[in-house]
Amino acid sequence: MKTIAILTGGGDCPGLNAVIRGVVRAAVLKRNWKVLGIADGFDGLVDGPRIIPLDMAAVKGILPRGGTILGTSNRGNPFAYPVEEGGEVKLMDVSRRVVENFRKVGAEALIAVGGDGTLKIARQLNDQGMPVVGVPKTIDNDLRGTDVTFGYNTAVGVVTEALDRLHTTAESHNRVMVVEVMGRDAGWIALESGIAGSADVILIPEIPFDMEKVCQAILARKERGSRFSIVVVSEGAFPAGGGKIVQLTADQNLGVERLGGMGQWVAAEIARRLEIETRTVVLGHVQRGGTPSPFDRILGSRFGTKAVELVEQGSFGQMVALRGRRVEAVAIEEAVGELNRVDPEGELIRTAEDLGVMVGR
Amino acid sequence: MKTIAILTGGGDCPGLNAVIRGVVRAAVLKRNWKVLGIADGFDGLVDGPRIIPLDMAAVKGILPRGGTILGTSNRGNPFAYPVEEGGEVKLMDVSRRVVENFRKVGAEALIAVGGDGTLKIARQLNDQGMPVVGVPKTIDNDLRGTDVTFGYNTAVGVVTEALDRLHTTAESHNRVMVVEVMGRDAGWIALESGIAGSADVILIPEIPFDMEKVCQAILARKERGSRFSIVVVSEGAFPAGGGKIVQLTADQNLGVERLGGMGQWVAAEIARRLEIETRTVVLGHVQRGGTPSPFDRILGSRFGTKAVELVEQGSFGQMVALRGRRVEAVAIEEAVGELNRVDPEGELIRTAEDLGVMVGR
Amino acid sequence: MKTIAILTGGGDCPGLNAVIRGVVRAAVLKRNWKVLGIADGFDGLVDGPRIIPLDMAAVKGILPRGGTILGTSNRGNPFAYPVEEGGEVKLMDVSRRVVENFRKVGAEALIAVGGDGTLKIARQLNDQGMPVVGVPKTIDNDLRGTDVTFGYNTAVGVVTEALDRLHTTAESHNRVMVVEVMGRDAGWIALESGIAGSADVILIPEIPFDMEKVCQAILARKERGSRFSIVVVSEGAFPAGGGKIVQLTADQNLGVERLGGMGQWVAAEIARRLEIETRTVVLGHVQRGGTPSPFDRILGSRFGTKAVELVEQGSFGQMVALRGRRVEAVAIEEAVGELNRVDPEGELIRTAEDLGVMVGR
Amino acid sequence: MKTIAILTGGGDCPGLNAVIRGVVRAAVLKRNWKVLGIADGFDGLVDGPRIIPLDMAAVKGILPRGGTILGTSNRGNPFAYPVEEGGEVKLMDVSRRVVENFRKVGAEALIAVGGDGTLKIARQLNDQGMPVVGVPKTIDNDLRGTDVTFGYNTAVGVVTEALDRLHTTAESHNRVMVVEVMGRDAGWIALESGIAGSADVILIPEIPFDMEKVCQAILARKERGSRFSIVVVSEGAFPAGGGKIVQLTADQNLGVERLGGMGQWVAAEIARRLEIETRTVVLGHVQRGGTPSPFDRILGSRFGTKAVELVEQGSFGQMVALRGRRVEAVAIEEAVGELNRVDPEGELIRTAEDLGVMVGR
Repeated sequence: MKTIAILTGGGDCPGLNAVIRGVVRAAVLKRNWKVLGIADGFDGLVDGPRIIPLDMAAVKGILPRGGTILGTSNRGNPFAYPVEEGGEVKLMDVSRRVVENFRKVGAEALIAVGGDGTLKIARQLNDQGMPVVGVPKTIDNDLRGTDVTFGYNTAVGVVTEALDRLHTTAESHNRVMVVEVMGRDAGWIALESGIAGSADVILIPEIPFDMEKVCQAILARKERGSRFSIVVVSEGAFPAGGGKIVQLTADQNLGVERLGGMGQWVAAEIARRLEIETRTVVLGHVQRGGTPSPFDRILGSRFGTKAVELVEQGSFGQMVALRGRRVEAVAIEEAVGELNRVDPEGELIRTAEDLGVMVGR
Repeated sequence: MKTIAILTGGGDCPGLNAVIRGVVRAAVLKRNWKVLGIADGFDGLVDGPRIIPLDMAAVKGILPRGGTILGTSNRGNPFAYPVEEGGEVKLMDVSRRVVENFRKVGAEALIAVGGDGTLKIARQLNDQGMPVVGVPKTIDNDLRGTDVTFGYNTAVGVVTEALDRLHTTAESHNRVMVVEVMGRDAGWIALESGIAGSADVILIPEIPFDMEKVCQAILARKERGSRFSIVVVSEGAFPAGGGKIVQLTADQNLGVERLGGMGQWVAAEIARRLEIETRTVVLGHVQRGGTPSPFDRILGSRFGTKAVELVEQGSFGQMVALRGRRVEAVAIEEAVGELNRVDPEGELIRTAEDLGVMVGR
Repeated sequence: MKTIAILTGGGDCPGLNAVIRGVVRAAVLKRNWKVLGIADGFDGLVDGPRIIPLDMAAVKGILPRGGTILGTSNRGNPFAYPVEEGGEVKLMDVSRRVVENFRKVGAEALIAVGGDGTLKIARQLNDQGMPVVGVPKTIDNDLRGTDVTFGYNTAVGVVTEALDRLHTTAESHNRVMVVEVMGRDAGWIALESGIAGSADVILIPEIPFDMEKVCQAILARKERGSRFSIVVVSEGAFPAGGGKIVQLTADQNLGVERLGGMGQWVAAEIARRLEIETRTVVLGHVQRGGTPSPFDRILGSRFGTKAVELVEQGSFGQMVALRGRRVEAVAIEEAVGELNRVDPEGELIRTAEDLGVMVGR
Repeated sequence: MKTIAILTGGGDCPGLNAVIRGVVRAAVLKRNWKVLGIADGFDGLVDGPRIIPLDMAAVKGILPRGGTILGTSNRGNPFAYPVEEGGEVKLMDVSRRVVENFRKVGAEALIAVGGDGTLKIARQLNDQGMPVVGVPKTIDNDLRGTDVTFGYNTAVGVVTEALDRLHTTAESHNRVMVVEVMGRDAGWIALESGIAGSADVILIPEIPFDMEKVCQAILARKERGSRFSIVVVSEGAFPAGGGKIVQLTADQNLGVERLGGMGQWVAAEIARRLEIETRTVVLGHVQRGGTPSPFDRILGSRFGTKAVELVEQGSFGQMVALRGRRVEAVAIEEAVGELNRVDPEGELIRTAEDLGVMVGR
């Protein structure tokens, strides 16, 4: 009877529980293995080890739930781990402790579910002899190596629903609605939900935007008789020339460092330049939470069961990935390092522009 | 064959189309009357008159749609109407023009759907001899005279769904989530959605909050083992002592006057005082838009058909109202003037406190 | 330190967990009492007693979940309880055992959450000296004594969403869609969701329907240019004259006793009489399950906290009830016995008919 | 200025309006072409021609709406068209009339959106010299040539939501819930929604099921302590050996030919064999209607804009298709003829079995 371990690292993402459940059911029900959950990502291997036993009962009813029953790491990378020493915080390599703790746990393999950061650590640990299989996770869809991962579809759904709601209220008034959405480095969520939710302007990090042209697009709509416009802004979008340095600071006397994000800056700029009423929506973590969409539940389940298969085959250093209609194994290297960003000349941007959406240029 | 007119005034609200459809079907199908829509609230009677004929085809398929097919007024009160004269804007009484235009329209009665402002105007016009029936509307639930109006239930639903989503993601991390919701003068939306969405702290305009106690409540939760807290803040909430004067201004060089609202201020304060990560969600107009809940569709339909009955009976100066399980007629006076605010010592606050929710005191 | 017990009886209903959570939080957090859950309704007091301790951890996260964490009774009434004796099942009065078991449990009061059946038992047990407070529950809204109970609003939401979906597909084709919904004795769900979902025909138990007139209404719509009609049928609706005896039996060789319900019968009749394509939807238990609407969560929470207050005051033999905007105490007698049925001449039916809906007559 | 035409054929499918809107915006906004809609699929070219002009205003607001603003064909294939002659209906080849009518319309190309039937006709007409570009459509996901089409994702979402609701109510009782879903020839909807909604048994047309083993699986769950089971049944599933001949007929005196579907038969069989309560849900057309999911809106938009590109390039006889992450052109032949069915030995079935789902064998 084999024993395997699983952890979830990095930011939260709907579908994590589907992966965990998939791993447990494929291992316990099908193969009669034992599964141990590591609490709070790699943190649970740095201290402790902190173990959450995962039997069938432990994963009952978790498929439709957001979040992860294992928690995710908050402190960080074992190869540069913040350790307090004499009142000072230093970054230290505690990877040896992780490997030792993993041995104590008694598992033959680790399934590491996470994004760029987690997968890099997984690969390094695998190189150090700890057998690891990866499961890619990114709500922003900015990971390479897989067509898409779980969580992203849910996030696009949340934003699209908000845009649907804004449409009806925008139509009744004369206003510009600005919606700030997730996407620090990649504009996928803004782009796809903007298309699905019929946005008029979509601003993404991959295409530095020209505020003047954004305003012209809104005016042009007005001249064609549309009383309102909806602008979707990735949190990581930025004006051409301005670089990503725009920082909004408020009254320091209030002890507040940063009050508004890029969405609020864009709204304020439109209001100032066009003398038109604007309203801002900041969806924030609402995009990361809640019940995963069926697509994400299925993909998470497929990833989980496939990861167990990779462990069975001894395919360590690999991760599961969606390629077309198939879930396959690819080297973890393929996912980490460079990001999967929107191609400014690609098909999806062309679709948006064909639909009459202004993408900031 | 009678002819009646209908207009929708003030802010947007899910269920307005249900009222319009109810009026049209009850008048056209049942009584063989003619219905004329006035565009953009009382604005459509100041200029124009601007008329949208409302036959059965015009209201086909509008029941599940947010917004109002008639538009709402943007400029304002005919008794103090902004008129430009010589580059200056003056407030003038144009009510006579409204009455004249209404006569031109040829309708025997006006059904005015709107909030405090619209209903006050309706009553004044009725006093001047224009036969008006009112339909109360307020997304914030701050109108007197009726147990509740349409739109509010939908808004509570939108906020609750967001809180549900935040719960799962908050549970996976160590964070305080602050959600700013509608409610300038009354905290109903924050209070009811906070109860439904299991908020830990609810701050409303009726109970000036003590930031120190808010922080203590969050710390107390932490000590009991809860890694996160969810705080719901009415946009009109304010700290005790501070008055409603808190104004957040950002870098004036950016030409931005106001970047953050009360939600962002509370989040910043918690972060500063407790040295804990906070995240803010600003749902804004998402709360006002989108398909009305079944409750709001039914209430809107009942209000619409009842309003036609009041016209038939000649009950002018009255408005429709929900009282217990019945839709009845009450004098418009009962609704206007004072607001329907949360009673700090009432049953709903007691329920919240019994559930362990901190309400700012 | 007081100890109280709670059980949930009868059919499933969204909001039950909100009541349980409300009771636990109001008792444990606020009053430092102890709460014991009885498993599977009164069954858990007939055998056993079977106890589920309810502390704060036990009710964590249950507010948005459908069903009841306590289970509901499946066997039945302690005053006529099915007991097997010598291969035969007899109905016996086991109420004394219930009272004894309750004493063993050591609770000073029982909060009994349930419908007509459960509340009757509760009252009888209260008369026998067991201190009981009732919480009314009915998904069909057929209980007297309270304006409405939790669960009903959610059920209307599920049906309305299905009707919304049917509308768009019906519009693209030439068809009659028949939707069978819950409501054996009362047509509230059919009536309210039919209004909210823009049904063309609504058939309820309170108004025996005339199939001929139903067909005429569909034909009349066709003549006015509508290619489709949507018919909502309570499971307990029945044709005038036919009585409630219509029973559909299929090929006995298949060992099947009852294949179709009233919805399918109505669909078949329309197809036969009008030679038109019909399609049937049977939503069944989908209406009873899933996350409760915000309305039901709030009402359940208010009922739960109020029930604890009644226990505190010693108001036994009473139940909580919604009256207008207030939750109050009423005698359990007011709820049991007669049903709350739709008034065929009441305001809601008048609203439906004013909207042009055919209600079977 | 080019003129193109578009029609939608066959069954209804969420996302059709997204395609129409994509075509119109890409043609009108971007290329300054003219677009003509053909009403009711090929029917609109057999009689008439019946034309719906499609300018920007015509497609305003249709993206989130189910159905198709063009209607779909109800009579059928122009190569075997039902024509009444002397009281008798004969199938005649009216394709020449279609080609003539198309010429009258004055369009240079036709975009035909539809399933297997529509695409076959499109190819034949293209062979006869009418320039056609295809857009594949199938709610069941049973078309070859494309990874997936729009509508399917929405249908899986509707079923999954129903399964989520059933779970909570099933858990409170002792019951088997049987849900019949779409899928006459292919079991994709049952399989994917069954995985996403955590079904215990999934029966699909590709794997004739063994009723005995289905019952054993339910019993095995009971022995492991699960009080309920959820069974998802494709409408086209059938028992091994039985062939697809099972026909359920009810009392002929009621004039009813077919009351129950395969879901009801399975429920009755389980009830009979295991003496356990069962409940049936028949979602029917609810699965075909309503607002398309974001995925379907985006895919429909991409298909629509790409189809215009194909027209521009003169790539007739081709259809658009999703391959991995790209929308490409493939020959219409690739889609028609054989169906895309679930591979009983493929990865998705393996995933289901790894998760512990019983797939009928």
